[in-house]
Amino acid sequence: MRLLLINPNMTQTMTDSLAQVARSVAGPEVAITALTASKGFPYIASRAEAQIAGGIVLEMIAAHQQEADAVIIAAFGDPGLIAARELFDLPVIGMAEAAVMSAAMLGERFAIVTFSPHMARWYADSVRLTGLNSRFTGVRCPDTPPNSVANVATELRNELIALAAKATDTDGADVVILGGAPLAGLAPQIADSTSGILVDPIAAATAQAIALASLKPCFRNRNAPPAAKTSTGLEPELTAHIAGENR
Amino acid sequence: MRLLLINPNMTQTMTDSLAQVARSVAGPEVAITALTASKGFPYIASRAEAQIAGGIVLEMIAAHQQEADAVIIAAFGDPGLIAARELFDLPVIGMAEAAVMSAAMLGERFAIVTFSPHMARWYADSVRLTGLNSRFTGVRCPDTPPNSVANVATELRNELIALAAKATDTDGADVVILGGAPLAGLAPQIADSTSGILVDPIAAATAQAIALASLKPCFRNRNAPPAAKTSTGLEPELTAHIAGENR
Amino acid sequence: MRLLLINPNMTQTMTDSLAQVARSVAGPEVAITALTASKGFPYIASRAEAQIAGGIVLEMIAAHQQEADAVIIAAFGDPGLIAARELFDLPVIGMAEAAVMSAAMLGERFAIVTFSPHMARWYADSVRLTGLNSRFTGVRCPDTPPNSVANVATELRNELIALAAKATDTDGADVVILGGAPLAGLAPQIADSTSGILVDPIAAATAQAIALASLKPCFRNRNAPPAAKTSTGLEPELTAHIAGENR
Amino acid sequence: MRLLLINPNMTQTMTDSLAQVARSVAGPEVAITALTASKGFPYIASRAEAQIAGGIVLEMIAAHQQEADAVIIAAFGDPGLIAARELFDLPVIGMAEAAVMSAAMLGERFAIVTFSPHMARWYADSVRLTGLNSRFTGVRCPDTPPNSVANVATELRNELIALAAKATDTDGADVVILGGAPLAGLAPQIADSTSGILVDPIAAATAQAIALASLKPCFRNRNAPPAAKTSTGLEPELTAHIAGENR
Amino acid sequence: MRLLLINPNMTQTMTDSLAQVARSVAGPEVAITALTASKGFPYIASRAEAQIAGGIVLEMIAAHQQEADAVIIAAFGDPGLIAARELFDLPVIGMAEAAVMSAAMLGERFAIVTFSPHMARWYADSVRLTGLNSRFTGVRCPDTPPNSVANVATELRNELIALAAKATDTDGADVVILGGAPLAGLAPQIADSTSGILVDPIAAATAQAIALASLKPCFRNRNAPPAAKTSTGLEPELTAHIAGENR
Amino acid sequence: MRLLLINPNMTQTMTDSLAQVARSVAGPEVAITALTASKGFPYIASRAEAQIAGGIVLEMIAAHQQEADAVIIAAFGDPGLIAARELFDLPVIGMAEAAVMSAAMLGERFAIVTFSPHMARWYADSVRLTGLNSRFTGVRCPDTPPNSVANVATELRNELIALAAKATDTDGADVVILGGAPLAGLAPQIADSTSGILVDPIAAATAQAIALASLKPCFRNRNAPPAAKTSTGLEPELTAHIAGENR
Repeated sequence: MRLLLINPNMTQTMTDSLAQVARSVAGPEVAITALTASKGFPYIASRAEAQIAGGIVLEMIAAHQQEADAVIIAAFGDPGLIAARELFDLPVIGMAEAAVMSAAMLGERFAIVTFSPHMARWYADSVRLTGLNSRFTGVRCPDTPPNSVANVATELRNELIALAAKATDTDGADVVILGGAPLAGLAPQIADSTSGILVDPIAAATAQAIALASLKPCFRNRNAPPAAKTSTGLEPELTAHIAGENR
Repeated sequence: MRLLLINPNMTQTMTDSLAQVARSVAGPEVAITALTASKGFPYIASRAEAQIAGGIVLEMIAAHQQEADAVIIAAFGDPGLIAARELFDLPVIGMAEAAVMSAAMLGERFAIVTFSPHMARWYADSVRLTGLNSRFTGVRCPDTPPNSVANVATELRNELIALAAKATDTDGADVVILGGAPLAGLAPQIADSTSGILVDPIAAATAQAIALASLKPCFRNRNAPPAAKTSTGLEPELTAHIAGENR
Repeated sequence: MRLLLINPNMTQTMTDSLAQVARSVAGPEVAITALTASKGFPYIASRAEAQIAGGIVLEMIAAHQQEADAVIIAAFGDPGLIAARELFDLPVIGMAEAAVMSAAMLGERFAIVTFSPHMARWYADSVRLTGLNSRFTGVRCPDTPPNSVANVATELRNELIALAAKATDTDGADVVILGGAPLAGLAPQIADSTSGILVDPIAAATAQAIALASLKPCFRNRNAPPAAKTSTGLEPELTAHIAGENR
Repeated sequence: MRLLLINPNMTQTMTDSLAQVARSVAGPEVAITALTASKGFPYIASRAEAQIAGGIVLEMIAAHQQEADAVIIAAFGDPGLIAARELFDLPVIGMAEAAVMSAAMLGERFAIVTFSPHMARWYADSVRLTGLNSRFTGVRCPDTPPNSVANVATELRNELIALAAKATDTDGADVVILGGAPLAGLAPQIADSTSGILVDPIAAATAQAIALASLKPCFRNRNAPPAAKTSTGLEPELTAHIAGENR
Repeated sequence: MRLLLINPNMTQTMTDSLAQVARSVAGPEVAITALTASKGFPYIASRAEAQIAGGIVLEMIAAHQQEADAVIIAAFGDPGLIAARELFDLPVIGMAEAAVMSAAMLGERFAIVTFSPHMARWYADSVRLTGLNSRFTGVRCPDTPPNSVANVATELRNELIALAAKATDTDGADVVILGGAPLAGLAPQIADSTSGILVDPIAAATAQAIALASLKPCFRNRNAPPAAKTSTGLEPELTAHIAGENR
Repeated sequence: MRLLLINPNMTQTMTDSLAQVARSVAGPEVAITALTASKGFPYIASRAEAQIAGGIVLEMIAAHQQEADAVIIAAFGDPGLIAARELFDLPVIGMAEAAVMSAAMLGERFAIVTFSPHMARWYADSVRLTGLNSRFTGVRCPDTPPNSVANVATELRNELIALAAKATDTDGADVVILGGAPLAGLAPQIADSTSGILVDPIAAATAQAIALASLKPCFRNRNAPPAAKTSTGLEPELTAHIAGENR
């Protein structure tokens, strides 16, 4: 099985840590190609940036879809997810959606714990987009953003543990999603000292990509795919795909 | 007052007809600058296309924001609306949202009547995005798409009138939104023979842009605008705006 | 254009300050007739009072509808709004609904800040009635009611600014509606020192009345207007209108 | 136990038939005082009429509250219900609400079957007002209104039975509410030949009024009753009650 | 009239106190048979226990249905309620549902006050199951569970009064449900010193059982009862009932 | 990895066909133990039967939990799912929930197609329980139940294909879940001739069980597990588990 892990952010070190977690979950039989965006932003942190990054995601998938059985959009707000599902005939997994769906099968209510208030509203909107808001107890995050996102997993370790306790004890969450790429791989390190069942979004996205690919879904007769269409100013592979050339 | 009317579609004739309706509603005291996308698609008809067009909308606003007191995104699915509101310090109006909000003040329940089943789901999602789904009776459209969108207003005139009757009599709508740029200007022509109160989205968007601009809203202290940020591969004006240069 | 501004409260000074704001938004080309209720209550502050005032609103519209292109019900809980829309063939704007709809086009989430806990629940219900509850972050108000509503705008100025900060920073509101007739005109005075985008309900209602009137909506074929009917004990103009005499 | 049955309609024969059903449910130990409105409309059939009738209901309760342990508002749309609960310190039951709550305890989903399309939307709104919309399968009614409401129970008997079958078999309702005062007393007559569990709103309202009165609820410390207030132009008993004289 | 009061808990003293309250509400004309579970748990406190207790409830109803005009499931989470309604042709009342429905007719919003955080989530789910979540202000309970449930009504009396004040003053509840069998009978004792309108679930369930039985609902033609079916390992009366023997 | 596949129905042939599909999805590295209920019903078809079967599921899991890394409850209505999650410290997957969550990651909207109207409401309730109702287009099923469930997959093949077409073309579903154990394994056989993306619930449940087990979730610190408790009349292993002996 081959997975395409697409990081819409331009930070290679982030891609590396995401790919490392993904490979540890997927095991040796699954080949994972990890790509980093060559346009856009170092780290997406707003819906405006996600609007732009979503278009870049479509370009990256168009250029590499032949190499994959499923695609992972490896940024928490799932930029371009709905558009990618509309355009491409293979499973496309969003990190936020996969974390939410997995959390909803591990417990009744789930929370998101993250490292910065800047992301709180966007993450909450990602949950609403999944339709599972009724089982969501909310985002818990520090009151102030960190100076750098580079080392939040280690620097904020104790605060994140305390936030997870608030999410379970005060908000009634059964499952705690550790949201945001910089927290990739943290879950198993703090599971023993953290309340609730922890979910790592990239791990969940990888497991879900494998699960959906293993179902070998047939996209041939799917409902209302976009009609082939000419476009102007897009990257050649996306232009060709939208023009219906490789469908 | 100066309004910026942005057509994310690349079809100039569409821009012209939208601008004509907008000017007839706005009257002589309002200056309307109408722009047509120079990238993207002749006519956006899917969420995938809207994902890409939304980024183009941000570029167009960034390049022309200094010339306007309010911006109209003149495509029914409101591509880029949320992102634009996040980025720019002036009222940004979406054609679908403005039509829905206006309809909700003219009656209790509203419907959308449009010319093609291709648009039905996307339009329904535009309503859900506004949060007013509970007052929405649904989309009524022909069973088959037209061969060309150019003349649907005249060719489908009688069918659209019949669909509006279904929306009011069967679905219980008080207000009928004529959705889709190709229907711009149709409402007053068929009002006498159509049941329900008709709303023309571009007319509603223009009236709402003027209304919000007349409130002179102060954006200076607004909540959590995106932090200034470097980006790669975007148009210069948008790059500069996101970098915080003209804020 | 002619607007009818109906104050269902019996306090003339309140009507005067509402009309002053309305005229400043509408400009010289719009004629505004401001009426004060001659029955009912000095200041409506409960749903029981709104039930009674709503009937008085219908009487006032019936007596003056010929003089107007649109009607503003100038009390925050929108007494009689749904009934008035059912009875009269012109746009009827509620102050709360217009503020909510305008707020929802200026930002994603909105709050109401008001001067007394007595109004909090009723105001929250006004939002629910619009259907936009999912974008509403709640009412923020002082813990105790003021001794008099006469000067709350000046006496509570600092507390209202602090409440707006709570609404944006804690509750995540983008837009803050200053609810209640006694706060009419306050928004521009405190905008510089208040967080969030401020909306003045009477200003919003005026702008929306002009916007909807400018759409020249056709009510001729509207859905299920009440059948003409005889009544007993109502004011003569309302009796005549319900009897279908001037339809 | 003493019940006050208030018919906000001016039709005495309707009051008589409602009282007859109420007494048959209540049995000899319960004294029922049945009152007919002396103002308003022969038969309320719109929200505009309900707005006015709701004020009349308040006047009737104010004039007779001393004679009752509970009050029944005997019109399906529950005119004045929320306002009456706010003003008076005894259980106030609405015919629609009582029918809905009773239906929701007899089965999982409930429908309303009524005799005229004119009432369909208003009845649906009465259900939404209760908050139980999620268990409501909708209103089933004839396509055209009857010439007179006087004898619908007998003239439309077979059609009503057929509509109930649609409500259960097509819409999945377990319980069928026979909505509208003209259908009072019909349920037991057609139960054998009608699918679903039938609920007669006036019977349900009577049973609920007795149930709530038997709980002897204490209103002394209730939350935020309206402050005593002077008013102008209301009936003397209501004026006195709102002024706090008999509280 | 004959009511069957089924306590799915194995604690006889609890059954006795529930029956005492039920009889005081029902009066001498209503015969109440009170049964205690002979299997399961001393006191149900989780959904897992409710899953098992629900099956026991079905066995108890099957064994005694001939003796009753209505059945009360006398445990707050209403174990087995939906299943029992599906199987048996008489009104089945759940203590939580009856309390919620009664509360919703006494005021606009209701809260639950209970004696232990262990029950909070389960009780909140019981409300959601009724569909009336939109009128529910939440559960208020002590931060820590009691050592024994035996005497919580007396030992926690003052804390429960304080929690009710929070529910009304902070959360905006009009009605306060005292949730949990150990609080049966407490309401009238503390009504004078407690804010809000108090509802005792077993009293409400008894009043609702009488109300629904007095409607003499006809179950003969109800929608989609389960087909007769053979089963293995169930109690004989339930086996016989499911096999359709006494239908 | 070891999966426990629990069939709450007593039909061994059904267990065999479910296990066959599960093994084909899981591959040789996953050991699947398939168990058939020895109590209860040949085939669960109502919520009453699910209430009882849910307790049996708990007994079966308690007796075999040591042999598994995850549990599949292999009946579409997910009997006992919530209770099992509360009691046991390993992933518990419901067939309906897993199908719904998988469908929601393959497309935007999903439908259920099944073989009998008897199951329609129960299946719809299973979806509501997941919280994903807003993405559900409803159940499509034949108008009449089959004489036997044994061969519905072959006998109704063409009708099921036609129902899937209705679900996609009329209802707007992207994904079609083939609901009910008798349809296990049908999806790949008809995918070429069926519109929409097909999901086989047992295949989805198997893929999800593997996905969640591969996340190695830590249940040690989970929120509010039921306290250890004595019980009466339950199977020994469940009694011991509830008593906390093997925790």
